[in-house]
Amino acid sequence: MYCDPIGTISTPFETTSEAPSQGFHTDAEGVVRVGDEYADGLSGFDAPAVVVVWWADRADRSVLTLDRDPSRGVFTSRSPARPNPVCITECEVLGVDTGELQVRGVDMADGSPVVDLKSSLRDRPR
Amino acid sequence: MYCDPIGTISTPFETTSEAPSQGFHTDAEGVVRVGDEYADGLSGFDAPAVVVVWWADRADRSVLTLDRDPSRGVFTSRSPARPNPVCITECEVLGVDTGELQVRGVDMADGSPVVDLKSSLRDRPR
Repeated sequence: MYCDPIGTISTPFETTSEAPSQGFHTDAEGVVRVGDEYADGLSGFDAPAVVVVWWADRADRSVLTLDRDPSRGVFTSRSPARPNPVCITECEVLGVDTGELQVRGVDMADGSPVVDLKSSLRDRPR
Repeated sequence: MYCDPIGTISTPFETTSEAPSQGFHTDAEGVVRVGDEYADGLSGFDAPAVVVVWWADRADRSVLTLDRDPSRGVFTSRSPARPNPVCITECEVLGVDTGELQVRGVDMADGSPVVDLKSSLRDRPR
């Protein structure tokens, strides 16, 4: 299964070790920039939150158990280290421009590829 | 960016048109079966909920705007039709076996490839 990135995200974290383990622990801000060929996919975006699906391109894809507790598998965690390093971060939306979202609550290393953007289920009935 | 499925999910929905638009609207049950080579990734799984990241292998990847409202882009929605059809469904966990999770709240077509499993942020502080 092949994905082309739809864009990238700029964040204050130069390396993965600087990035926090979950976006909702931080108020760090970032910018999602969607490639020109995908910009129409953002038309009409007016939601207060967005689910950023990104690719942890510097993650170790060979591990199946957690470094901190080898009795637990990676599927019990949200660590980026896993066979398919697809990561999910729900961010607050601060602003929208053509092909661009300014967001708060980022936890990815600067320049990480963005796979997808989705509307958030936050604040909706479950 | 290339993903190999880590497994597949069985659901009651034979086709995508039978599948509901969001898992939390249904009590439908399914089974995630993780491939033997990835089964260690489920070691120690004991959470009440799981985020199933799956691949909508029958989705139209060529669309950027919504059929129901062409003024809105696909990134404002959670429709499977999008450039990279990576979908996210949070399910309740009913049981765990080796390489297998029984879950409730599925919305994928039967046999959809599973890309990843993650612990849920539900019930955690935000």
